[in-house]
Amino acid sequence: MSNVLVLGHKNPDTDSICSAISYAYLKNEMGMLAEPVRLGEVNNETLFALNTFKFDEPRLVTQVAKEATQVILVDHNERQQSADDIGDVQVIEVVDHHRIANFETMDPLYFRAEPVGCTTTIILKLFKENNVEVPSNIAGLMLSAIISDSLLFKSPTCTEQDVKAAAELAEIAGVDAQSYGLDLLKAGADLSNKTLEDLISLDSKEFEAGDHRFEVAQVNAIDVEEVMVRQKELEVLMTNAILTKKLNLFMFVVTDILNNNSVAIVLGKRADIIESAFKSSVIDHRVLLPGVVSRKKQIVPVITEALS
Amino acid sequence: MSNVLVLGHKNPDTDSICSAISYAYLKNEMGMLAEPVRLGEVNNETLFALNTFKFDEPRLVTQVAKEATQVILVDHNERQQSADDIGDVQVIEVVDHHRIANFETMDPLYFRAEPVGCTTTIILKLFKENNVEVPSNIAGLMLSAIISDSLLFKSPTCTEQDVKAAAELAEIAGVDAQSYGLDLLKAGADLSNKTLEDLISLDSKEFEAGDHRFEVAQVNAIDVEEVMVRQKELEVLMTNAILTKKLNLFMFVVTDILNNNSVAIVLGKRADIIESAFKSSVIDHRVLLPGVVSRKKQIVPVITEALS
Ligand SMILES: [Mn+2]
Ligand SMILES: [Mn+2]
Repeated sequence: MSNVLVLGHKNPDTDSICSAISYAYLKNEMGMLAEPVRLGEVNNETLFALNTFKFDEPRLVTQVAKEATQVILVDHNERQQSADDIGDVQVIEVVDHHRIANFETMDPLYFRAEPVGCTTTIILKLFKENNVEVPSNIAGLMLSAIISDSLLFKSPTCTEQDVKAAAELAEIAGVDAQSYGLDLLKAGADLSNKTLEDLISLDSKEFEAGDHRFEVAQVNAIDVEEVMVRQKELEVLMTNAILTKKLNLFMFVVTDILNNNSVAIVLGKRADIIESAFKSSVIDHRVLLPGVVSRKKQIVPVITEALS
Repeated sequence: MSNVLVLGHKNPDTDSICSAISYAYLKNEMGMLAEPVRLGEVNNETLFALNTFKFDEPRLVTQVAKEATQVILVDHNERQQSADDIGDVQVIEVVDHHRIANFETMDPLYFRAEPVGCTTTIILKLFKENNVEVPSNIAGLMLSAIISDSLLFKSPTCTEQDVKAAAELAEIAGVDAQSYGLDLLKAGADLSNKTLEDLISLDSKEFEAGDHRFEVAQVNAIDVEEVMVRQKELEVLMTNAILTKKLNLFMFVVTDILNNNSVAIVLGKRADIIESAFKSSVIDHRVLLPGVVSRKKQIVPVITEALS
């Protein structure tokens, strides 16, 4: 029998990679043959976490059905964010903290979604519910995921449960959450080795609202202007993506991780909704988003509402 | 602020009613103002459970949006099985043990589905996870739901977790699961006060597979032939339902609760799939289903597969 593959979303972020590794560890402890895999390149922030806690990158798998008959999804549930051939395998479990949409099964399954800031906050509960101890290096990865998804506890998606889980995990991992966290975010905000193509695609997600398809890409930065000086070149790439993927809207968000604000470039035939949806002027396709750091909580619902 | 309504599916069964009452109790203990409601008439089996443990029927609510802005779904997730206006309220939690389909939210929520035989098996875990004690009368209702959904532990949907939960709940409720269980199932199989219309509609669920819409109604009986002698009259009512609801297939299942077999009447333009799907001859629209007792595990997936 083939292993059960544990996978996060496309364009994996730190939560997707660390959830896959830690949940696969838990399932193995519980007697299942489970292997964490990734659907795409690991980003600099995640690499920093993997290096710190001495893990290799999970294996890259692009076609899951070639490898397994059963999979577990972590940190996502929407079909279009998963493996392209996800329809050809059985999803036996989902552990997630996003809205639920475009998800359907033939049979009952274990589906655990909670409105918390990070998937590993839920995975920590699952370790406890199953009486499995979290090893120190796994705790480090799980902590990294919470720091990443919550922008060091500053995102509005961050809940008390995330803060409490992070404190427990930092204790087990033997690191200081604040100082390690800032190093982790800075590693993620190091854009020096990124092409412009990388910026608009590495952490990008597609969504549907009514008949509209939109995409929101996000990068964290220490110096936002360093990215924005290349706006014209970015717009060319975004326009290509709009045509190729038949998008009605493409939003590219640069988030200032030290000051917790964002600036976005918006293009596409439904970019007209942005000004009123976010109550902020769009000038030369650029919009300031004060206090906005969370794609999931502060951007996607606002666009979905405006397009519906 | 209005109460949060806790609701099971249309044509409520014992699990839907008892899950709504017990989960609303738990949420109230946890500080939420929650009220259990029902979307339809309570059946004889459920009435027996409510009477035994001294509960009133939950209030009948047909339009949830008039009453509340937020709801919790138990024992179902598919839109067409829920309140007709479910799209007008926010679903903040789901606790269920069915496949997931036709479910979508704008925001993250608490969604807890597990592949066990009954919703109250999961609710018992939630009492424990939140350190709330199960009162004896609530335990009686939760036990009733497990007995009902598992046909006294004989259905293939019944898991070890259900058996274990039932034993715990029987202890708390102070009843003998076997003897109480048989009385409960017999109360449900008392069809003497049922019209033919009741038989094909009270515990009936609609499903979609590809472009096909089908419905499966089920009744439990002690004497199957008592129902089947009225086959011709039942067929008239079923044909009406097929026309009114634009069904491609209507299956009416009579389950012998003492011997754990079923007999079904099948009508509709896609009734042609039944013979090969269930590997059993269809004679005069009637098919024998030896060992089949579970709509969810032994009927719906088989039809879905055949129609897809
Ligand atoms: Mn996440
Ligand atoms: Mn049920």
